[in-house]
Amino acid sequence: MENIMEKTSQVITPDQLLEHWQGHRRLTRKVIEAFPENEFFNHSIGGMRPFADMVMELLGIAEPGLREMVTGVPAQLNEHFEHNNSKERLLEAWDKATDDINTLWAKMKEMDFQKEIVSFGQYPGTVQSSLFYFIDNEMHHRGQGYVYLRSLGIEPPMFYDRS
Amino acid sequence: MENIMEKTSQVITPDQLLEHWQGHRRLTRKVIEAFPENEFFNHSIGGMRPFADMVMELLGIAEPGLREMVTGVPAQLNEHFEHNNSKERLLEAWDKATDDINTLWAKMKEMDFQKEIVSFGQYPGTVQSSLFYFIDNEMHHRGQGYVYLRSLGIEPPMFYDRS
Repeated sequence: MENIMEKTSQVITPDQLLEHWQGHRRLTRKVIEAFPENEFFNHSIGGMRPFADMVMELLGIAEPGLREMVTGVPAQLNEHFEHNNSKERLLEAWDKATDDINTLWAKMKEMDFQKEIVSFGQYPGTVQSSLFYFIDNEMHHRGQGYVYLRSLGIEPPMFYDRS
Repeated sequence: MENIMEKTSQVITPDQLLEHWQGHRRLTRKVIEAFPENEFFNHSIGGMRPFADMVMELLGIAEPGLREMVTGVPAQLNEHFEHNNSKERLLEAWDKATDDINTLWAKMKEMDFQKEIVSFGQYPGTVQSSLFYFIDNEMHHRGQGYVYLRSLGIEPPMFYDRS
């Protein structure tokens, strides 16, 4: 009976949350790939940042934010990555973050997701609210990337394709 | 000890997930409000739908999708709402959905979020994956609405403002 109660009361398990996150990160990777290199670094609508700048924000948040949670060592928000206008360089950083997130996540099995933390020395929340914020912020900017692609006449990947 | 284990193993509680969802819905409501009425129904970039059409999709998913989970009565996906080109009409539908979601959520306390379901007769998943899909899809389209607003020279609400 206790096991059933635990199962029914669990909304999303840590393993499922990792898969949820990485599924979204796989879709964002496809969106990066869909951009022509020049437009990735330069295309803009309404004075907004090019998609590359948004991607650097996402890179600066995901792995460093999770590492901070797991290690307790304060992280600095860094949204600048060496790229030399090469999309490949940022895709490499993306893939490295993917692996590092998987490695760090092994420590999340013992994590209290309700613990109060301050991310990047300035954003108070709990472990769960911070993780969801990271993921939500990625969806938000990726949705913007979809409009950039459409405005360039490029068909974005299907939203439900997380493979 | 058992209580502690339960607490540490719970990533997000049903109450927190409702608040997460409604917080996002409050932000989307602010984005709707930020649009001038004509542009809400007509502005488009790259052949995409006007934001009003995306909002009707969101209205067609959120409350009907949750009602289907709670009652077990199959729902039909309906993305068309009577609006007469009035933003106020769709805001009223939005607010009614907000109240109805809160009412329906009272039944989610006994819900097995891991239960396999088929939403709208065509989307297989679990209760949790379906709910997150509904929420994620809203963020995705709302992010697109931000670009529409920026392209019109309008400052969107802050992403973190869920009040």
